[in-house]
Amino acid sequence: MLYIIGLGLGDERDITLRGLEAVKKCETLYMEAYTSLLCFGLSTDGLSTLEKLYGKPIIIADREMVEEKVDNILSEARGSDVAFLVVGDPFGATTHTDLVVRAKTLGVDVKVVHNASVMNAIGICGLQLYRYGETVSIPFFTETWRPDSFYEKIQRNRNLGLHTLCLLDIRVKEPTLESLCRGRKQYEPPRFMTINTAIEQLLEVEQKHGESAYGEDTACVGIARLGSEDQMIVAGTMRQLLMVDFGKPLHCLVMVGQTHPVEDEMLEFYKIRSENSEHKGNGIS
Amino acid sequence: MLYIIGLGLGDERDITLRGLEAVKKCETLYMEAYTSLLCFGLSTDGLSTLEKLYGKPIIIADREMVEEKVDNILSEARGSDVAFLVVGDPFGATTHTDLVVRAKTLGVDVKVVHNASVMNAIGICGLQLYRYGETVSIPFFTETWRPDSFYEKIQRNRNLGLHTLCLLDIRVKEPTLESLCRGRKQYEPPRFMTINTAIEQLLEVEQKHGESAYGEDTACVGIARLGSEDQMIVAGTMRQLLMVDFGKPLHCLVMVGQTHPVEDEMLEFYKIRSENSEHKGNGIS
Repeated sequence: MLYIIGLGLGDERDITLRGLEAVKKCETLYMEAYTSLLCFGLSTDGLSTLEKLYGKPIIIADREMVEEKVDNILSEARGSDVAFLVVGDPFGATTHTDLVVRAKTLGVDVKVVHNASVMNAIGICGLQLYRYGETVSIPFFTETWRPDSFYEKIQRNRNLGLHTLCLLDIRVKEPTLESLCRGRKQYEPPRFMTINTAIEQLLEVEQKHGESAYGEDTACVGIARLGSEDQMIVAGTMRQLLMVDFGKPLHCLVMVGQTHPVEDEMLEFYKIRSENSEHKGNGIS
Repeated sequence: MLYIIGLGLGDERDITLRGLEAVKKCETLYMEAYTSLLCFGLSTDGLSTLEKLYGKPIIIADREMVEEKVDNILSEARGSDVAFLVVGDPFGATTHTDLVVRAKTLGVDVKVVHNASVMNAIGICGLQLYRYGETVSIPFFTETWRPDSFYEKIQRNRNLGLHTLCLLDIRVKEPTLESLCRGRKQYEPPRFMTINTAIEQLLEVEQKHGESAYGEDTACVGIARLGSEDQMIVAGTMRQLLMVDFGKPLHCLVMVGQTHPVEDEMLEFYKIRSENSEHKGNGIS
């Protein structure tokens, strides 16, 4: 049996009892490398928090390993219980559909243990989940690669009065230019997009298109470390949020559509109070 | 402190360790009546499964009680730790934003414990969450009340190639007509909409509008008891799903938009195999 177990968003205590039961039963535990790094703030040492809780070692599987060795993992799961641990929900923002399809094709049974993901936990900002349009991803721009297909999607959502969740780029295990030239694998340090960078890129794209889909005065909510003890949620215009230091990853951004009164009341708690963009705690965590 | 704790979708073991910690710390536990009835299949007896796990009694709060006594609950939360238990995520399909707003207005601090909700767990059907448009709700039609504002939303989603999650009506504690006349409170038994009823209503509305937003051959996925051990997921046309008995609540329905190959592969596992709409287990649970 292959268990795909969602770990939630914050720390090791966000696993469900059902998930922990499965983990205890499994002979081998795999976990995606970048999830442990970016979401749980774990280093090689830090991993032991999870391992202590689970009572067994975890094999860190980076993207290459998952791609290269998935058949080994799956044939292992044919004869024993194997768990694949993922941050958030197994089918949240990062999808594991492909893993399920490959497992099923090989005749391996799959059990999914759900958990919170950004796609529903984002509800804490006060905007109703059923009033969101299509989710967009904002990729890191480079000198030569500045894709902006998100612009049209945001425009459509906003024309319909819908909110837009913007997922921000994460780059892990990107080969360095040098390593590509020399044929030896060396990697750039992991990068995650800040809310500030996302807003800069969004405004650049608006300027290019010039169709006023949104602008500096558009209401947004910036969310950092959603679901963690030190999560930070700030509502304000794009211009205001540009000045806020949201701190450590992960970040995401919501562009606010038409609001209902209860949504406005909730946003009020998260609003920037003063001109210098200072933001005090709001007693919701 | 007011804790709003998501319980997940399946059974008592879907609470997170963080949620259980909070429950153990709280002096009083409230839980919405209809959630315990419909999602966890609990009767007054059954509740003891949760109470045993939590080590303390739970006060069942029906909708009236929440509305009438919310200020009592909140003033209690000012001096002690009080938990409000909700199925799914606190900000999932059923929103508790209003409760948070009232708490904050009274100066009560709020802590939210996230969990899976239909809004992300639906990902198990294989359709990518970021490819969903606006979510719609399908209300029970009566002789005289047949609202169909969902039609336009579905049409829009489908024109954009997006999937549509249809949340199906739940009626609990509806006063009987007799009780309304006599001024004494008596209630109809709880009702939940089946996938079959939803499809019948959807097709009726399509016939009325006649704009071919969808039809009997439109691909859908019916999901019953999402996240439970006995969940049932069947992919097929509206015509095919009309013939399927999905069993006990809760049900929901996804209308499939344009699909990517990995989405198709996943749907394949859930497809009805034979003409008589028989559906075998698919080894994903």
